[in-house]
Amino acid sequence: MTETLTLFPDDAETLQADTIVPASRLTACVEALYIASSGDFETRPIDVLQLGFDGIANDFHQGLTRRSGGREPWYPRGTEMRNERQLSIVAPDELVTIAELMALPEIRPEWIGANILLSGIPKLSMLPARTKLFFANGVTLKIDGQNHPCKLSGRSIARHAGVADEAAGALLFPRVAKRLRGLVGWVEKPGRIETGEAVSVHIPEQWIYRA
Amino acid sequence: MTETLTLFPDDAETLQADTIVPASRLTACVEALYIASSGDFETRPIDVLQLGFDGIANDFHQGLTRRSGGREPWYPRGTEMRNERQLSIVAPDELVTIAELMALPEIRPEWIGANILLSGIPKLSMLPARTKLFFANGVTLKIDGQNHPCKLSGRSIARHAGVADEAAGALLFPRVAKRLRGLVGWVEKPGRIETGEAVSVHIPEQWIYRA
Repeated sequence: MTETLTLFPDDAETLQADTIVPASRLTACVEALYIASSGDFETRPIDVLQLGFDGIANDFHQGLTRRSGGREPWYPRGTEMRNERQLSIVAPDELVTIAELMALPEIRPEWIGANILLSGIPKLSMLPARTKLFFANGVTLKIDGQNHPCKLSGRSIARHAGVADEAAGALLFPRVAKRLRGLVGWVEKPGRIETGEAVSVHIPEQWIYRA
Repeated sequence: MTETLTLFPDDAETLQADTIVPASRLTACVEALYIASSGDFETRPIDVLQLGFDGIANDFHQGLTRRSGGREPWYPRGTEMRNERQLSIVAPDELVTIAELMALPEIRPEWIGANILLSGIPKLSMLPARTKLFFANGVTLKIDGQNHPCKLSGRSIARHAGVADEAAGALLFPRVAKRLRGLVGWVEKPGRIETGEAVSVHIPEQWIYRA
């Protein structure tokens, strides 16, 4: 197992299969916060999120466990499982890209149930699993992975944006928003997150596993 | 973002930085089970593990949360945090390799506090974060990542193996066992694991993130 840091020229970016890409850090900023406090997945702006080990207090996705659904075809629907989807995190630039691809003036984080609008991380949706977000005031979130865009969020976008053909709009979102719809994760260390807070993003070592 | 499946000739295994390696599956087998029921990290063989969302019932590492230690230098020691280290999983071939590197006849899983001896997965320690282990009888474990070899396990090996210079043996383990010491993970879906059980290993999509 080699652990050399290889330099990658932009025009010929290649990676040896057994190369370990070292851990690294980035800095991000909490642009806005949102909570799903009305009994469904859509969120509304809020200045502060209060977090426990079970996620955001009084939020639709709060829970140490959750019920399985369409994302887990290997379980009977409704199976109790660990909740790795306590929070939804999106990036302003990725929402702009999705809006452009859908020919809409904007997509607001609350339409798709985001809890944190996080700026400063290029290609936020591509951050690897196990990345940690250390918030300046003490909270730590851990990234599970990409949030897959679904028809439900598509329908919400179509409705809020006033798309004429709502059904077509709902279907367009899952097609164009893949790898742009942000991340889900859970609380590693509880506390309070405030708008404007700085975040230190710790990206773990990376490699490609091949059997 | 390209999502083409590229074929890799063995002698020139290279990967474009933006390539998504598709999800894949492997099959493994539970060779043996162990529990830490004596108040420290060392384990003893047992036929069945009973798992809740908080890990193995009556095990040293049971808990929805744990106290931080030397692995988390960013927290004051003893900080309550989510327990992503409920179970320790090791592979027979990797233990043989470590034993060879330490010039010992064997290293037994229980000396280093393993809970599951899992066969059939090449380079088990290199499985990516977010890999899921579906046990035939219904349990699902989710992999956090590599278990970093520490001096404490080194000392246990040196003592059990009767190494003359115990301090030197204790220090050798962290040096040679890196990326061979198995994985830690947590319970996604509780239940009962038995010796001999088959395990379906679901490896997620992989890619290398670069800012």
